[in-house]
Amino acid sequence: MQIAILLFDRLTALDAVGPYEVLSRLPETTVTFVAERPGLKRTDTGQLALNADAALDELPYPDILLVPGGPGQSELMSDGPVHEWLRAAHERSTWTTSVCTGSLILAAAGLLAGKRATTYWTALEELGRLGVEVVQERFVFDGKLATAAGVSAGIDMSLALAARIAGEQVAQAIQLGIEYEPQPPFRAGSPTTAPPELVEAFRGRSRFD
Amino acid sequence: MQIAILLFDRLTALDAVGPYEVLSRLPETTVTFVAERPGLKRTDTGQLALNADAALDELPYPDILLVPGGPGQSELMSDGPVHEWLRAAHERSTWTTSVCTGSLILAAAGLLAGKRATTYWTALEELGRLGVEVVQERFVFDGKLATAAGVSAGIDMSLALAARIAGEQVAQAIQLGIEYEPQPPFRAGSPTTAPPELVEAFRGRSRFD
Repeated sequence: MQIAILLFDRLTALDAVGPYEVLSRLPETTVTFVAERPGLKRTDTGQLALNADAALDELPYPDILLVPGGPGQSELMSDGPVHEWLRAAHERSTWTTSVCTGSLILAAAGLLAGKRATTYWTALEELGRLGVEVVQERFVFDGKLATAAGVSAGIDMSLALAARIAGEQVAQAIQLGIEYEPQPPFRAGSPTTAPPELVEAFRGRSRFD
Repeated sequence: MQIAILLFDRLTALDAVGPYEVLSRLPETTVTFVAERPGLKRTDTGQLALNADAALDELPYPDILLVPGGPGQSELMSDGPVHEWLRAAHERSTWTTSVCTGSLILAAAGLLAGKRATTYWTALEELGRLGVEVVQERFVFDGKLATAAGVSAGIDMSLALAARIAGEQVAQAIQLGIEYEPQPPFRAGSPTTAPPELVEAFRGRSRFD
C-alpha cells in the first residue's frame, strides 16, 4: 500500500508526523513524503525541517492521501499543481484524509463539497463557508474521506483508519507499539474542556502569535 | 530559552516531534535539532528524514536537553562525542529529558545512576540493568531529570514540563493549541491495558519486525 503525505512550507509538524508514526506501521506499507518541489520544508516555527523525498508527479495515485495543516495552508487555497494532484489522486484513492486545517485545502480543491468533515477548532466556520457539512468531532469518516481535528487528533484518526484497513488487532498492536496511553496533565485540549477565559483569549489571536 | 533535541539515524520520529510541538510553543524559546553531524537523519522506518540544523558543539549548553529513542539508540550506548556532549551539557542544564529508549542513552552516559526514571515498556529491564531505579509510569521527574515512557508519552511529559517552566496557564494554552484531547479508539496503549495475547506477541519480537 502506498501512502502519500503532503508537505509544504509552514506546516505543523505533528499533523504529519503523528499519522506517519501510526500508518507506517501497517503491514506492507510505504509512506512517502511528497511536495510540489522535493526537499526540506520548514515547519511553522521555522525550527524543524522535514524532507519531502518525492515530487507530486512521482506518486500520482497513492492508495492513501494525507494532507496536514498549519499556517502554510493559507498558501494552498488557490487552484494549482497541488489541487490538480489532489483531485486526480482522490479519484483513484482508497482513502483521502486530512489533519487540522488540511481539510481546508481538500475543500478548496473541491473534494469536500456536501461532505461531513472537521478541522482545527478555530477553523470550523471557515470550513463551513467552503460548502462542507462541518462536524465538531475528534475525527470524521464520510465514505472514503477521513478528516481529523487539530494537530494531535491525527494520531486518533490514523488508529481508527488502521483498524478499518487491517483490522482491530493490527491497530491495537500499533497503539501498543507507540505506547499510546495518553495521560494529558490537564483538561484543556478542546474549546469545550479548556478554561473559558483561555478559549476566548485564544480566539482573539492567531495560533502562532 | 535554548532547547536542544538530539537527532540520530533510526530514531523514532514522534519521540522527538511530539515534545518539539509542545516545547517550541513556550514563550521566548528556540528549539534546535542537533546531531553529531548535521544534516538529514532517517527515522527508523527509513521513510522520513528530519534535519539536524546544528552540530553538538554549536550548542554546548542548552537550557533543556531532550534525547529521543528508537532503534538507533543501540548505536549510542558507548562512550563518544554524544556522551561527552550530554555529560557537559547536563552539568549546566535546567532540565535534562528523554523519551522512550532515549533514557538508555542518558543512562549509558552516566546521567541516571541511582535516579528514578522510565523508558519504553519493553526496555524497562534493560534500564534497570544500567543502575537506574526504574519506575513504570507515563513520565517521571527526579530533580532536573524528566524521562517519558514510549514514543507518544513525550507529549504528556512535555506538557507537564511546560507547566513547571512557565506555569499551568501557559501549558494549558499549549495543550489547546495542539488540540490535545486524546480519544484513542482502543484501550491498547500499554502492557497493562492491551489484550494480554497482544502483549505477549509483542514481547517475543523486536519493535519493528
